[in-house]
Amino acid sequence: MKLARFNEGHIGIVVDEEIIDINDLVNKDLEAWPLVAMNRLIAEYQQFEPTLRAALARPRIPLSQVQLLTPIPASSKVIAYPINYHDHATEMGRQAKANNLGFFLKPPSSLSGPSDPILLPDLPDRRIDHECELAIVIGKRGKDIPREDWQDYVFGYSCLMDIVVRGKEERVARKAFDTFCPVGPWIMTADELGDPSNLRGRLWVNDELRQDANTRDLIVDIPGMIEIASHIMTLEPGDIIAAGTPAGVGPIKGGDHVKIEFEKIGSMTVMVKQTSGGRASIFETTAAVS
Amino acid sequence: MKLARFNEGHIGIVVDEEIIDINDLVNKDLEAWPLVAMNRLIAEYQQFEPTLRAALARPRIPLSQVQLLTPIPASSKVIAYPINYHDHATEMGRQAKANNLGFFLKPPSSLSGPSDPILLPDLPDRRIDHECELAIVIGKRGKDIPREDWQDYVFGYSCLMDIVVRGKEERVARKAFDTFCPVGPWIMTADELGDPSNLRGRLWVNDELRQDANTRDLIVDIPGMIEIASHIMTLEPGDIIAAGTPAGVGPIKGGDHVKIEFEKIGSMTVMVKQTSGGRASIFETTAAVS
Repeated sequence: MKLARFNEGHIGIVVDEEIIDINDLVNKDLEAWPLVAMNRLIAEYQQFEPTLRAALARPRIPLSQVQLLTPIPASSKVIAYPINYHDHATEMGRQAKANNLGFFLKPPSSLSGPSDPILLPDLPDRRIDHECELAIVIGKRGKDIPREDWQDYVFGYSCLMDIVVRGKEERVARKAFDTFCPVGPWIMTADELGDPSNLRGRLWVNDELRQDANTRDLIVDIPGMIEIASHIMTLEPGDIIAAGTPAGVGPIKGGDHVKIEFEKIGSMTVMVKQTSGGRASIFETTAAVS
Repeated sequence: MKLARFNEGHIGIVVDEEIIDINDLVNKDLEAWPLVAMNRLIAEYQQFEPTLRAALARPRIPLSQVQLLTPIPASSKVIAYPINYHDHATEMGRQAKANNLGFFLKPPSSLSGPSDPILLPDLPDRRIDHECELAIVIGKRGKDIPREDWQDYVFGYSCLMDIVVRGKEERVARKAFDTFCPVGPWIMTADELGDPSNLRGRLWVNDELRQDANTRDLIVDIPGMIEIASHIMTLEPGDIIAAGTPAGVGPIKGGDHVKIEFEKIGSMTVMVKQTSGGRASIFETTAAVS
């Protein structure tokens, strides 16, 4: 099943090129803040599933008539593995890789969706890059999960762009800007996707292919990422793991459009827009940082 | 006003050595997950305040008869400024400081409270340190906040221990373990605390004073931390900023008790417990990491 958020935060099921509004079944209070309805749907999915299956008979709206939003806006953790493809390690001149480094975090405030532009901060001296990543959505609370049990904890998959300002400041700060984590166009549930260990993922800037990867080339594979993260943190339903980017990262600028596609999941194209905000003082210096 | 969580997640007001249960007023559904009742109370505090003032006439329970919990278990962001005191930069041999580095994030799953032990992972070759920090609690959504407006966005203050496994892996992964972010014993609202720019904070291990700092010595001060973070991320009610630690960080081990106290706010003492979990594979190597 493909679960999405759209328009004013309605939750829907995507079937082919249409969407079925199921908001009345799973999100009674659209005004409630924080926006945790999808987290709750994921946590209680087994109970909801028969109701959702029955809702497939409802009328459908063409996807072209709705605005898709990021599927889990209040994810409690966006866990990202840096340097998780050998070819990206080579292009960045890095020795240490994800199997030694572990992960960092992106804030939920950085999550944006298929209809949201990537908003570039006003840092004219800095390169701002795209990174093409598979998103793994956690379905069940877990701690110290052995790698052989990984499937019990995966709810589904999505496409994720990890946008980053290059520089020597804390990696987290450089990757934390609002809209620096487009996720979408929906969550494809794990039962429908099948084996994620051989998925091709590609990213284009202005129709030019920039990144072309396959999850079989991950240094730390999906079971390994779940094992490492859960030996440190309790994972929660709706947590997102960003699997890391392959070679081909490169700069984006205002006016670009960036397309990401993962095999079996889907694709989305987001616009890039230059803003006059985001001039945090930490970026004022280009001095070497130890 | 001092706002706390206690027992099964009730919200209360602390007055002297007693607590008033106000859960029925602000947290109708105790079973709801995620645990966002305190986030909502903070966001809507101005509306709630007259009701809370009236509740001060209610019966009180001695604090000694309740278990205090971490005040904001579902904070959307725990934003931490590394190397934000000169004396700590010196002891760590670091050139770069918070004004150049910016911040990293700790996961909400690392938050624990006054009644929770710090659970040490089973990493016998690694030093695990305490860090004594002021917690600043955000009260209002904000982006690109100029430093002169900082007070409009601060809800209150608390004590925070930033626990860390030393090593060369990603800083976030080393600081992300469950219970590695004790916060408490309550939130002291900003109106009651007054000026936070000259607050003494101390930390003791087994009654031995290890850290003794004053917020007047921060490299990036509180207005500056809010300005930097909000020029990158939209801040949300209930977000926590960890201000950074002064000199005197040092190891903790199972059986220790660690006390933290900030002037005007309060103090809490947490136990340290060795566990057999948390052996994430990234810690298996001590190889140099670039």
